[in-house]
Amino acid sequence: MQFDRLLTEARLATMVAGDDGYGVIEKAALGIKDGRIAWIGPMSEIPGEARETERLASRWVTPALIDCHTHLVFAGDRSDEFERRLGGESYESISRSGGGIARSVEATRAAGAAELAAGALTRIDALAQEGVGTVEIKSGYGLTRESERTMLRAARGVERASGMRVSATLLAAHAVPPEYKGESGRYIDEICIPLIREAAREGLADAVDAYCEGIGFSPEETRRLFIAAKAAGLPVKLHADQLSDTGGARLVAEFGGLSADHIEYTNAEGIAAMAKAGTVGVLLPGAFYALNETKKPPVEAMRAAGVDMAVATDANPGTSPLVSLLTAANMACILFGLTLPEAFAGMTRNAARALGLHGEIGTLEVGKAADLAIWDVERPAEIIQWIGRRPLHGRILAGEWQ
Amino acid sequence: MQFDRLLTEARLATMVAGDDGYGVIEKAALGIKDGRIAWIGPMSEIPGEARETERLASRWVTPALIDCHTHLVFAGDRSDEFERRLGGESYESISRSGGGIARSVEATRAAGAAELAAGALTRIDALAQEGVGTVEIKSGYGLTRESERTMLRAARGVERASGMRVSATLLAAHAVPPEYKGESGRYIDEICIPLIREAAREGLADAVDAYCEGIGFSPEETRRLFIAAKAAGLPVKLHADQLSDTGGARLVAEFGGLSADHIEYTNAEGIAAMAKAGTVGVLLPGAFYALNETKKPPVEAMRAAGVDMAVATDANPGTSPLVSLLTAANMACILFGLTLPEAFAGMTRNAARALGLHGEIGTLEVGKAADLAIWDVERPAEIIQWIGRRPLHGRILAGEWQ
Ligand SMILES: [Zn+2]
Ligand SMILES: [Zn+2]
Repeated sequence: MQFDRLLTEARLATMVAGDDGYGVIEKAALGIKDGRIAWIGPMSEIPGEARETERLASRWVTPALIDCHTHLVFAGDRSDEFERRLGGESYESISRSGGGIARSVEATRAAGAAELAAGALTRIDALAQEGVGTVEIKSGYGLTRESERTMLRAARGVERASGMRVSATLLAAHAVPPEYKGESGRYIDEICIPLIREAAREGLADAVDAYCEGIGFSPEETRRLFIAAKAAGLPVKLHADQLSDTGGARLVAEFGGLSADHIEYTNAEGIAAMAKAGTVGVLLPGAFYALNETKKPPVEAMRAAGVDMAVATDANPGTSPLVSLLTAANMACILFGLTLPEAFAGMTRNAARALGLHGEIGTLEVGKAADLAIWDVERPAEIIQWIGRRPLHGRILAGEWQ
Repeated sequence: MQFDRLLTEARLATMVAGDDGYGVIEKAALGIKDGRIAWIGPMSEIPGEARETERLASRWVTPALIDCHTHLVFAGDRSDEFERRLGGESYESISRSGGGIARSVEATRAAGAAELAAGALTRIDALAQEGVGTVEIKSGYGLTRESERTMLRAARGVERASGMRVSATLLAAHAVPPEYKGESGRYIDEICIPLIREAAREGLADAVDAYCEGIGFSPEETRRLFIAAKAAGLPVKLHADQLSDTGGARLVAEFGGLSADHIEYTNAEGIAAMAKAGTVGVLLPGAFYALNETKKPPVEAMRAAGVDMAVATDANPGTSPLVSLLTAANMACILFGLTLPEAFAGMTRNAARALGLHGEIGTLEVGKAADLAIWDVERPAEIIQWIGRRPLHGRILAGEWQ
């Protein structure tokens, strides 16, 4: 076999599901051809030559990390609200004075796709330095047919400019915009559903998401949206059961959804439905932490039911100002009780599944894209144990060093 | 006036105590001469020329940050314990099988000063990228006369190699070493007190610290240690009241101590004593977070009593694997309820006071060292609001770009 690139003297955490949790292969080599993993095995059995051979000196190699839930495209700064809140002012009071998500919407509507992409790139860079190779980005601060599509175009622009793989999600049903105040149903019908058709036709979105909550959209409205998404051929996911149990997880599972996200209040029925449908439970501890929440997602019940769990940053300017996936993983361990192999699976194998990309990325397996993170550590545990350390040696995406 | 360096078009958060919490000067310039701040004022009143003038394009300038409580010098890796704990094993069980601090002691005793410094430098680098210019480093993993001094020499080596200002603290009374098991008093007398005299004579330590706790050293043993420190001319500080109320804060205040650190269980009497003595309360939210503690330090009571509060990482391989001072500040806000100006003061003005360096660093004032952090933000709040973002433009230490 002739490889384009051969990595030798590596320790691989393939993240293929198995006994040790990491799918470890010690004293390993990994051959890359045409941007894909062409061979994996022990150093002693390398079956060919390579144009370039690199000795990794026992460094660990994992799949490039995947942040499967973010709101990285937005305009405007809400740090003054953070300051006011710490000074004792309530969310409600800030919201009444024009703050909250309405601020981000106002600023985002005023921005063009290039400006939005440029802002997101500074935040993407922090993720790249932690080994992230794929990031999901949602719309949801435009809330008009034009501005939501501008956000999705910005997400595609981020992909081109960053070299990262970007999965774009249409989240027009993020909040009810001021011009539809008190008429969420009419907003779903007049804006969100037509947008689904347009985004599908123009190839702007890879999935459809909604915010199903007392303060967001009702299960019935969400259902209408999901029916339209299915009709347009787009998979669905859901901000589900974050602040109350609305049956969101069950609803998204009913539509064979990719993921149910947040899920702090998800009940046993919802978990059973997720397990049956193969819907991933996406944990977002950054929001839990920043909002000082106390109700934790049902990790043990999901574990028992065999629901795959992912971990993501939920990076956004209001409720989860976090652009460190490794910190999110640390929080998922410390605050939610994930084990380390579960946290790693949550940033790789299961995060890929939450994006419907598990045939392409998320594990080190022959045939998948050669998206790798290489680490200066003695043990994978160190990568998550230390907050702020960033022990990344480098990333290879589609077979090329970044 | 002739400056070596003049920074113009700056926004200064001088952190001089005052009404707005930040000591803001907009449209400002800052002149540097001989490594010190020689002039600060509005752009319109610059009183001289400079060899080098740099326009900061409205970037914010703060004092270089100060991490006033760390255990950054150590050898060995304890990520396997983190993994076992997340897998459900108890601290006690890990400790009984030779884990915990004993592991770090064993590895540290086997290491030389150069190896210890090299290990610490990788961790210091993460702090430097966040704008930190001064770091305190404690001994306490050697626990022999020789090995504790090796740790202090490593801290001095870190200072030379990193360009950072390092404050070295003798913490021989960190834990009772195996060879003195059950004889903490004898360890204090035979090892810790002679070490104080040696470290003072050799200029190896800037302060003396101890771990006063049921599982550490008693208040009476701590008092003996503090008497010896005073006699040797070294200021004291204390790991106080972290897991129970031992009266530690009152004790260290009685000796005019620089700081009482952790202080989750400190009572009203302790706070009153700290206020009277000018002892700084050092908050260490990284340990609170990593240990899943629920008892928070008495922030409101300290605020009411006028106790200065600092924030530090407590960076260590066991109970606070955190090398991000900005994350510690974020946690101090979110978990402990600090306001943003309090968190900034905790990394600057009050952290300097906790090290006895408030005449030299911690605010932007004429005569102090020109230790500055320059930030790519619109508002200082952004620096703490976002976890993982690191919006540092650069650092100037003793008047030179790093
Ligand atoms: Zn979200
Ligand atoms: Zn400590």
